[in-house]
Amino acid sequence: MESSRLKKQIEFIKEVDKLKCIERKTSLFDSNRRENDAEHSWHLSLMAIILDEHSNENIDVLKVLKMLLIHDIVEIDAGDTFLFDTKKNHDNTAEEFVAAKRIFGILPKNQAEDLITIWKEFEEGETSEAKFAKAMDRFQPVLQNQSNNGGTWFEFNVIYENVIKKTEKIKLGSNTIWEYVEKTIKSLYNR
Amino acid sequence: MESSRLKKQIEFIKEVDKLKCIERKTSLFDSNRRENDAEHSWHLSLMAIILDEHSNENIDVLKVLKMLLIHDIVEIDAGDTFLFDTKKNHDNTAEEFVAAKRIFGILPKNQAEDLITIWKEFEEGETSEAKFAKAMDRFQPVLQNQSNNGGTWFEFNVIYENVIKKTEKIKLGSNTIWEYVEKTIKSLYNR
Repeated sequence: MESSRLKKQIEFIKEVDKLKCIERKTSLFDSNRRENDAEHSWHLSLMAIILDEHSNENIDVLKVLKMLLIHDIVEIDAGDTFLFDTKKNHDNTAEEFVAAKRIFGILPKNQAEDLITIWKEFEEGETSEAKFAKAMDRFQPVLQNQSNNGGTWFEFNVIYENVIKKTEKIKLGSNTIWEYVEKTIKSLYNR
Repeated sequence: MESSRLKKQIEFIKEVDKLKCIERKTSLFDSNRRENDAEHSWHLSLMAIILDEHSNENIDVLKVLKMLLIHDIVEIDAGDTFLFDTKKNHDNTAEEFVAAKRIFGILPKNQAEDLITIWKEFEEGETSEAKFAKAMDRFQPVLQNQSNNGGTWFEFNVIYENVIKKTEKIKLGSNTIWEYVEKTIKSLYNR
């Protein structure tokens, strides 16, 4: 019994290794090398344990970490969509849901169900934990673009209003961080 | 006050980005591309939430995750040491302690102290959480080498007895996982 569970878990651990090869649009700090989803997920998780004091609401940090560690795994099948992609909806979850069922489905049934539930909660962004986790996910590219003189925003000609529109959801998770982000964007766009 | 703490935290978040450029000896699964410390830390953290049921002792999973997310950060200054390096002690923590003080020291004082304490607890490997976290750290390269037909063990001519000696500490964290690991190593070395 134990052994059959462990086998499924190991199969999953091997499968998700592929996340290290899913490239994002944003680059590392002070660098041209693009970040991959595994590095990104590590960075967000670390940010969550450092920044949890700035959450607007009380949060279960363990749940936030679970969300952040798994939030991009569906991109192994569905690929990364740029936040400012004009053709494809960033939150098009139909394709991602199929991916979630396949990949988390490698795990023992109870774990698959748990992780799909946590992933959905993150995607819906309604709970305190999901709001804070999503704030981390939107805050990190801001810091990267700040370090890279505008980074992807300038590279892909994203106008000021769109950057504000997409990033202001940070406010739902943390007013303190949003205040910093708004100032940063204004300064980069010389507003 | 809030704002001065946030500034230090952001400086830390930018500094640790460098972990994405610290290369390990082991390669990704079924690949020749070497893994970096950030990807590695993500993978171990995810393993911990999947495999916690196999821990010998009750563990605080949040603490384990904190350990795994930060355990390699000192390598930004001290570099990665191969587990089977014959010249340099893998656990030579004098240099790593200086690194910990510099890097975690970027954070607000209370957070710097907390993370140095957690990092030391991991290094000492005495508590239930440290034993389980260290088991993850030793288990992942086993899975990688299993996928890569012996990987670094064969590449660097590590003899069977040394592989067993270094990996059997997994037993301190999880008997179930150690049982699987021992079988895997035996089968790779045809014992």
